[in-house]
Amino acid sequence: MRATVLHAAGDVRIEDVPDSVIKKPTDALVRVTASCICGSDLWPYGSMSPADGPTRMGHEFIGIVEDTGSSVTTVKKGDLVVAPFAISDGTCEFCREGLHTSCVHAQANFWDGEPDEGGQAEAVRIPLADGTLVKLPVAADSALMPSLLTLSDVFGTGYHAAVAGGVNERTRVTVIGDGAVGLLAVLSAKRLGAEQIILMGRHKARTDLGREFGATDVVSARGEEGIAQVRELTGGHGTHVVLEAVGTMPAYEQAVGIVRPGGIISRVGVPQYEEAPIGMESLFRPNLRLAGGPAPVRAYIEELMPDILNGTIEPGKVFDVTTDLDGVPAGYQDMADRKSLKVFIKP
Amino acid sequence: MRATVLHAAGDVRIEDVPDSVIKKPTDALVRVTASCICGSDLWPYGSMSPADGPTRMGHEFIGIVEDTGSSVTTVKKGDLVVAPFAISDGTCEFCREGLHTSCVHAQANFWDGEPDEGGQAEAVRIPLADGTLVKLPVAADSALMPSLLTLSDVFGTGYHAAVAGGVNERTRVTVIGDGAVGLLAVLSAKRLGAEQIILMGRHKARTDLGREFGATDVVSARGEEGIAQVRELTGGHGTHVVLEAVGTMPAYEQAVGIVRPGGIISRVGVPQYEEAPIGMESLFRPNLRLAGGPAPVRAYIEELMPDILNGTIEPGKVFDVTTDLDGVPAGYQDMADRKSLKVFIKP
Repeated sequence: MRATVLHAAGDVRIEDVPDSVIKKPTDALVRVTASCICGSDLWPYGSMSPADGPTRMGHEFIGIVEDTGSSVTTVKKGDLVVAPFAISDGTCEFCREGLHTSCVHAQANFWDGEPDEGGQAEAVRIPLADGTLVKLPVAADSALMPSLLTLSDVFGTGYHAAVAGGVNERTRVTVIGDGAVGLLAVLSAKRLGAEQIILMGRHKARTDLGREFGATDVVSARGEEGIAQVRELTGGHGTHVVLEAVGTMPAYEQAVGIVRPGGIISRVGVPQYEEAPIGMESLFRPNLRLAGGPAPVRAYIEELMPDILNGTIEPGKVFDVTTDLDGVPAGYQDMADRKSLKVFIKP
Repeated sequence: MRATVLHAAGDVRIEDVPDSVIKKPTDALVRVTASCICGSDLWPYGSMSPADGPTRMGHEFIGIVEDTGSSVTTVKKGDLVVAPFAISDGTCEFCREGLHTSCVHAQANFWDGEPDEGGQAEAVRIPLADGTLVKLPVAADSALMPSLLTLSDVFGTGYHAAVAGGVNERTRVTVIGDGAVGLLAVLSAKRLGAEQIILMGRHKARTDLGREFGATDVVSARGEEGIAQVRELTGGHGTHVVLEAVGTMPAYEQAVGIVRPGGIISRVGVPQYEEAPIGMESLFRPNLRLAGGPAPVRAYIEELMPDILNGTIEPGKVFDVTTDLDGVPAGYQDMADRKSLKVFIKP
């Protein structure tokens, strides 16, 4: 079968690899019908050393179940399913609490811990299929496919940011980042009723989509000037919640600058730093709170799916390019160059 | 009048200073009847350079109103009052939300911003008296005085840790630190119904008081060994909430080590660091949350006072030494040497 393999920074290839097959009774084999490239794929694409590769890519996909292990009961051959980016059994104490990203029974919580599998491919072996997969009540050629695919990561991640940030109808929110996750954090904040949603981003086509998703204000300035503009938009004190969907240190510092005393910074951008200011001069003095992490998107799929099925929301608008597997390497480069927002793949 | 003045690390003196007087219509003048030394006073006592002094000390006190400015309405001459360690007007948007430490109308939020005033003295001028002071319904010689005095800081601070940490009856809690704040964080967690309260401390007299306040387990080991012991006591995953009442980097690292995935670290120990690990290897991967800051103790006084008045709780047990003003310098040294837990002052 064909799959996407990253060899080193800038070197991603479509290659013939051994067919994925069932290995454990809890596995399912899924023929991929829709997949995509994630903003987080761009971190290794930008910096991975050849010594850390080659590695299979892709952790967001929809597909048709082709085979199941002997103990799998919730999905069967022919079912159309969506796979969250985290593998989980659905029964451990953390899964029961909705923190599937900390499932204690998954051999690897994330796809990068399954070195011979990846979603940007023709097929994938799914560990812990009963806990991980969710059946979709539509056909594989449904026009809803882009929106349903966002349930595998970006929509659930944006929603996790908003939920972990405690967004509600009394909340003013700033979203840092106009990538797919940031835009879907806007949609999520809107869904939770936020009274003001300020989107910080400088790419007009993206911030326009952000306005469509519910942003009430757009601030294109960054750093001190961006902070000043957000403060001006909020009567001087900043917003109750900041959803940080980038992951860089400047984005974190910006978040600290625009969050209101007593407020909360909710991070879902993968941090590109380990140490950061959290002492008297940053978080402590104004009683700022910090939340977030890898989103347990599995916890949100059933909650978010109905509004996609009934057409109330259309998170799939974050996809601006569609390609087949052969177009994946160019898709990586276009996303890295910010020419594409998010690339939809039909293998 | 006489007051406590810190000149430099290790050099604290009782001196004659100009009498405190009313300066603004919103001021009150209070004759101090009970005061104390705070663990946070030990930071400047341990490290202040002579260039940063001399400075008046003390931010926890009870006293009798001797005079009031023309606009003060909530307290009058002769009232016994308790002063929180933060000055607040009680009417701004943050005060109304219970975040009095971020009051926008206080010229200085904390007493160290009022260079000519301090609670370890015979008298104090209280700015924004209507918002700051709370009347006590007892006489100045009441046996409840030590417990009521804890409302000015340490009890409210321990309680803030527990509230900000979201402690409830389904929560397992670890408290790091066996100082007065740590012990009152134990009492607060107990009050909020925590099902397990692990106190980390190595001073037996203090951890014994912690058990009396509600600790179900005591761990005297620190660092990796302490982390391992807490994990063993909690089925391997640590506690939902960690109340960090020390403020050092080792205490923070210990908190990260013992908090359960998805859990929360609530800090009330004044951080002796600015940068700390919060990235993928520490807070982010397990979706850990961070909360806390200087406690808005004013917000908690009315809530906590009834249980003191009716004898249900006795937070004043944290005082193990009583002295007059002349004994204050020795009190500082004894607390720094950990010979005294907390020194009660009768000026």
